[in-house]
Amino acid sequence: MLKEIVLQEEPDEEVVQTKLQLEREKLAGYQNKLKEAGLPVMVIFEGWGAAGKGSVIGKVIKNIDPRFFKVTSMEVAPTKEEKRYPFMHRYMKVIPEAGKFAFFDTFWMKEVVTGVRNRSFDEKAYRKRIESINGTERSLHDNGYLIVKFFFEIDKKEQKKRLKALEEDKNAKWRVSASDVDENKNYEEYEKIYDRFLEDTNQPATPWYIIDAKKKKWALLQVLTYLNQAIDIALKNRAVASQILQNPYPLVSMPKLSDVTLDDKCITEEEYEVKLKALQKELGELHNKLYRKKIPVIIAYEGWDAAGKGGNIKRIAGALDPRGYEVIPIASPEPHEKARHFLWRFWNHIPKDGHIAIFDRTWYGRVMVERLEGFCSENDWQRAYHEINEFEKELTDWGAVVIKFWVQIDNKTQLERFTERQNTPEKQWKITDEDWRNREKWDQYEDAVNEMLQKTSTAFAPWRILESNDKKYARIKALEIVIDEIKKATKEKDRG
Amino acid sequence: MLKEIVLQEEPDEEVVQTKLQLEREKLAGYQNKLKEAGLPVMVIFEGWGAAGKGSVIGKVIKNIDPRFFKVTSMEVAPTKEEKRYPFMHRYMKVIPEAGKFAFFDTFWMKEVVTGVRNRSFDEKAYRKRIESINGTERSLHDNGYLIVKFFFEIDKKEQKKRLKALEEDKNAKWRVSASDVDENKNYEEYEKIYDRFLEDTNQPATPWYIIDAKKKKWALLQVLTYLNQAIDIALKNRAVASQILQNPYPLVSMPKLSDVTLDDKCITEEEYEVKLKALQKELGELHNKLYRKKIPVIIAYEGWDAAGKGGNIKRIAGALDPRGYEVIPIASPEPHEKARHFLWRFWNHIPKDGHIAIFDRTWYGRVMVERLEGFCSENDWQRAYHEINEFEKELTDWGAVVIKFWVQIDNKTQLERFTERQNTPEKQWKITDEDWRNREKWDQYEDAVNEMLQKTSTAFAPWRILESNDKKYARIKALEIVIDEIKKATKEKDRG
Repeated sequence: MLKEIVLQEEPDEEVVQTKLQLEREKLAGYQNKLKEAGLPVMVIFEGWGAAGKGSVIGKVIKNIDPRFFKVTSMEVAPTKEEKRYPFMHRYMKVIPEAGKFAFFDTFWMKEVVTGVRNRSFDEKAYRKRIESINGTERSLHDNGYLIVKFFFEIDKKEQKKRLKALEEDKNAKWRVSASDVDENKNYEEYEKIYDRFLEDTNQPATPWYIIDAKKKKWALLQVLTYLNQAIDIALKNRAVASQILQNPYPLVSMPKLSDVTLDDKCITEEEYEVKLKALQKELGELHNKLYRKKIPVIIAYEGWDAAGKGGNIKRIAGALDPRGYEVIPIASPEPHEKARHFLWRFWNHIPKDGHIAIFDRTWYGRVMVERLEGFCSENDWQRAYHEINEFEKELTDWGAVVIKFWVQIDNKTQLERFTERQNTPEKQWKITDEDWRNREKWDQYEDAVNEMLQKTSTAFAPWRILESNDKKYARIKALEIVIDEIKKATKEKDRG
Repeated sequence: MLKEIVLQEEPDEEVVQTKLQLEREKLAGYQNKLKEAGLPVMVIFEGWGAAGKGSVIGKVIKNIDPRFFKVTSMEVAPTKEEKRYPFMHRYMKVIPEAGKFAFFDTFWMKEVVTGVRNRSFDEKAYRKRIESINGTERSLHDNGYLIVKFFFEIDKKEQKKRLKALEEDKNAKWRVSASDVDENKNYEEYEKIYDRFLEDTNQPATPWYIIDAKKKKWALLQVLTYLNQAIDIALKNRAVASQILQNPYPLVSMPKLSDVTLDDKCITEEEYEVKLKALQKELGELHNKLYRKKIPVIIAYEGWDAAGKGGNIKRIAGALDPRGYEVIPIASPEPHEKARHFLWRFWNHIPKDGHIAIFDRTWYGRVMVERLEGFCSENDWQRAYHEINEFEKELTDWGAVVIKFWVQIDNKTQLERFTERQNTPEKQWKITDEDWRNREKWDQYEDAVNEMLQKTSTAFAPWRILESNDKKYARIKALEIVIDEIKKATKEKDRG
């Protein structure tokens, strides 16, 4: 078992004391280097109840300036509100920004092991969460995060002794929770669950450090030593590229943009009016249905400038109950967003169950504008195809309907629309110098979009092309697709 | 009664139709002007259950580009988690940013009237909330927000009819809540509560518009007309300065900074070590106590550059359980923060009950750096003294302990510390060109600080000066004050 393999022998007390001093100074010296290197560090503390995690965290942070860290005490169970979001949501929300430490007093491990112990997770649910955790840890690591995970180990007898001592102390009594007592009573069962989790999530880039927590100072020394080692390695290896993963997801084949015909995709004004009305009515009714069935829907819009995204979104939104959807316009990231994993700001806008989120531009900026303007490294955007697929898998596994639209027009149509905007006073705000500059890079963008469509059109979240030389045609097509997908999802929910 | 006074007569259907078209176009035309003027607009919908608020909201937003608005459907009651924060917290979190609309499907009115009806608010609690709401509305207005409030009026018979129709419709049945039924059954009692609330919150700058909601189109026309009028006025009057309010709060007298003696405030190394240890132990124990008693504590640090704020905070933080406090370093605001009321970003960091928040620089930036660097208008910072007092009143009324430290050194000591930082490689990151530039403005800052100390040292949240030429003296004094204040609060809680 993992836990038995790695426990180290405790040195003499004198040695512990000397080494502690050294490690403390080392950690204090690192905070500035972290800041300069923009390295975000997540330190996760897990382990047995009463093993002394809190007290060690308290001692570790004494060596760090308060401006450089944050301690987050995660609740074991998500709140009622949090339960309306994907498993990963509340964890992704609290990741640190570049150059800072985040210390977590229990993290996703505690939620999962408790779920297993309470029998609220079956084997499939457990496996799914392990997959989410491993994927997220890898993705965070690849995006420059250092994740250091500690498991605090004490044996049954020691735990019993500590719980008893706490209970006998009037002032500390309240610290002993029902789950601590349960843990000690069923130590052997918990041990099996812990062991399995530790093995299932022990990854090369994010290994577990098992801490012998029988003595406080010795526990602190182990934590400081491992943490310093990990930081040292991370600071030295920042430039080393991570390996690009092969795509493990089923893909749907997509045409090249140049093969998409546009001028044959049109509709008469009359037909448009009739269909629009009928489809909006139908979508409105479906919205009600998915609200009651608690199905979340995510609609992602990408496309050329002036392709008609705004008007298209308006026709979808116009059919919906305003209390149940949100349009999220995505601009370039602000400093606090740039300082975190590129998907963080999108995690913050995931709808709750029964709600619809419409993204006006999306996380695909990573493989388009960020790629072409050099806002991220080649390695970053190459890796992003997989990271994005994984993100969307997380969402669809949770039960979300994910619909991705590429709004397509040809080069000539864009020029016409740009010119019209330029010449119409009320529309001038819609056109900027940047739009003209982007237009000059049309061919590069087309290559990037083609690659994106090929690599991220997964079976669970395929791209849909909206031919939009005729904007009305594109709107009707979008409505039809959205209706179709929601219908499928509500029917599946009926069956499931 | 307010509601009866303002109901208008309904015009012919044909007139309604023509006017509707005009008002719709007007609203569509405003969105861009709003953006240019940076005007944030809050539109609040309240009223009887089944009065058709949702359907009107749906029609209003059809005239606006989804990038320019957000609809928020507030829950009537705060969640368990939200209850751990002040009343105003969940409302302040969702205020819109400059240039955008926020539509609210019920807001604070609904929470308050429900509280009154359920007898969960007594008269005092009701009055307190009215005061909070009126103060917040005034402060939002004065900071450039347009707040438009609608109350949807239908009579008892009409409501009964609508509820019945909904209940008979298989697909709409779920929309009828228990509180809707209760409302209709006890219409007269609710009417009294509503009326009183409307009158109590009917302010010159944020009046109520009572909407005759018996017919849908007519209701929509009233809403659009009032909304357009209000926007029109707000756009025209943006430059007009708001009146500066007199201070209604009891003040504590403060010395001028030049009268604070510093060199006599010192402590020996030995005394420091002994006291530090004892005080930190005591504070640690108190932290436990306030956690159990659910008392929130807010500690605010301001002071000269190099005065020793960081080290002082560290000594407080070092005594605390890391799971129960957070240090919040305040830098210059990011774009999304600048686009909102200046207190918004601080509302986002209010601790929950039982927790401690330590602010390293604070909302007082408004009357120091923002004032002196011209980041806000004179009217803005003049008004801010009152707005800040009101904010802190809100926090202390909620039960928070608010401790504000001014860390004081003299000009000579700052120069010595700056020079030392400059000459010590490990400390160089702490000193920037900006620090030197600010130093040149010492006298202006001193004047601003003196004014701030005079005007915001309220009885409920007085300033405390930490003489910090001797940093150790200042640390001990800070610990003593924090301990004292927490002790007082826990004793009061015992009594109350």
